[in-house]
Amino acid sequence: MGDLSLELFGLIAGAITSLGFIPQLFRGFRTKKLDDISYFMPMVLAVGMTLWFIYGYMSNAIAIMAANAFSICCCFILILMKKKYSLLKK
Amino acid sequence: MGDLSLELFGLIAGAITSLGFIPQLFRGFRTKKLDDISYFMPMVLAVGMTLWFIYGYMSNAIAIMAANAFSICCCFILILMKKKYSLLKK
Repeated sequence: MGDLSLELFGLIAGAITSLGFIPQLFRGFRTKKLDDISYFMPMVLAVGMTLWFIYGYMSNAIAIMAANAFSICCCFILILMKKKYSLLKK
Repeated sequence: MGDLSLELFGLIAGAITSLGFIPQLFRGFRTKKLDDISYFMPMVLAVGMTLWFIYGYMSNAIAIMAANAFSICCCFILILMKKKYSLLKK
């Protein structure tokens, strides 16, 4: 498989992985409840994905960089939503 | 940076990303509640990470393969736990 096809495959993989957070964000937005989500999950994932981003940068893999950048944003939105909804209940 | 260092860096990134699911699994196990988790999140992530696994296989990146294999397992455990706890409540 050529480099371009591999990169394209990575982009699809990255797009799907990034989409994984979207239903969770929607569910949280709909129910205004994210109590069962551990803060550590999006936090640790964001740290790991930042390292993946650097890995992608070092190995010139745009797919890995793009996917992780998007997912890192989703993680931060999840953390902010959880914080907001827990504050609203007080 | 050499290929070995890059692979090692990827392994660390992969290890941390994989660890992200552990606190969520522990929290679920402790509270016996995963209601706020969307089923679609671990499901879509598992599909995406299976593609990443194949990407890792095609680009000979053991780090990407190992990290995604572990995370896929975590996703399935999360789905099974959520199902089990929701059935227990009925």
